[in-house]
Amino acid sequence: MTLPEPLPKVTLAPIGHVRHRAAEVPRHWTVSELEGELELLPLYEGGLADISPGERIIVLFVFDRSAPFTPDLLKQETRHSKQIKGVFSICSPKRPNPIGLSVLDVLAVDRCRVRVRGLDMFDGTPILDIKPAFKTE
Amino acid sequence: MTLPEPLPKVTLAPIGHVRHRAAEVPRHWTVSELEGELELLPLYEGGLADISPGERIIVLFVFDRSAPFTPDLLKQETRHSKQIKGVFSICSPKRPNPIGLSVLDVLAVDRCRVRVRGLDMFDGTPILDIKPAFKTE
Repeated sequence: MTLPEPLPKVTLAPIGHVRHRAAEVPRHWTVSELEGELELLPLYEGGLADISPGERIIVLFVFDRSAPFTPDLLKQETRHSKQIKGVFSICSPKRPNPIGLSVLDVLAVDRCRVRVRGLDMFDGTPILDIKPAFKTE
Repeated sequence: MTLPEPLPKVTLAPIGHVRHRAAEVPRHWTVSELEGELELLPLYEGGLADISPGERIIVLFVFDRSAPFTPDLLKQETRHSKQIKGVFSICSPKRPNPIGLSVLDVLAVDRCRVRVRGLDMFDGTPILDIKPAFKTE
């Protein structure tokens, strides 16, 4: 069975971006203590109303420095374990759609800025969404 | 401090879509036993190489039936608990960027199709990415 028709593209407008001053960025949020800010466009301040220090949030962002995806990247060597794996089983920034996901600790919220710990993105990375973190297992 | 310049938009091409035959869709993956398939474009089959039955995966998808976001939706009544909350603290499909996230159980993988349990999307929902699930707390 094939897909009945081409899938329409989706255009998204970032809601803000990541700010920090670190020269080196940890490879993954699970091993990061890096602090910085999620600086949203002032328009979105109201959406942060119920985010409090001590919470964890999921941040979806754009891997905006990744080159366009090519079929040779369907399997990649992982940076950490040096195994060859399918792209949908790893967190590589080289993905068919360059969306990243990090789980961050909220330290403070000030108007349209969220102070967080656990960053693994470059300074200036565009943010697409913030969602409540969930517990698994 | 304001943002230095407008943030460029991002255009994404779905990698496939969700398939199931249920008339009713559970409100959230945490309470769903609904089974169906993630049907990827054949081009992406290689990226599924290391996904196995018994695993959990994160699926990012498009809320393609949501109306465009408007500022009155920055705070919304949650469907479940009937509280008014900031959009970034809830899982509403009415978001600045209409991206959904579900954590699904993998039942089987057959070429470019992944049989899953836990669906909370409509049949035909465009899929943007599949990522390995992580454990929190």
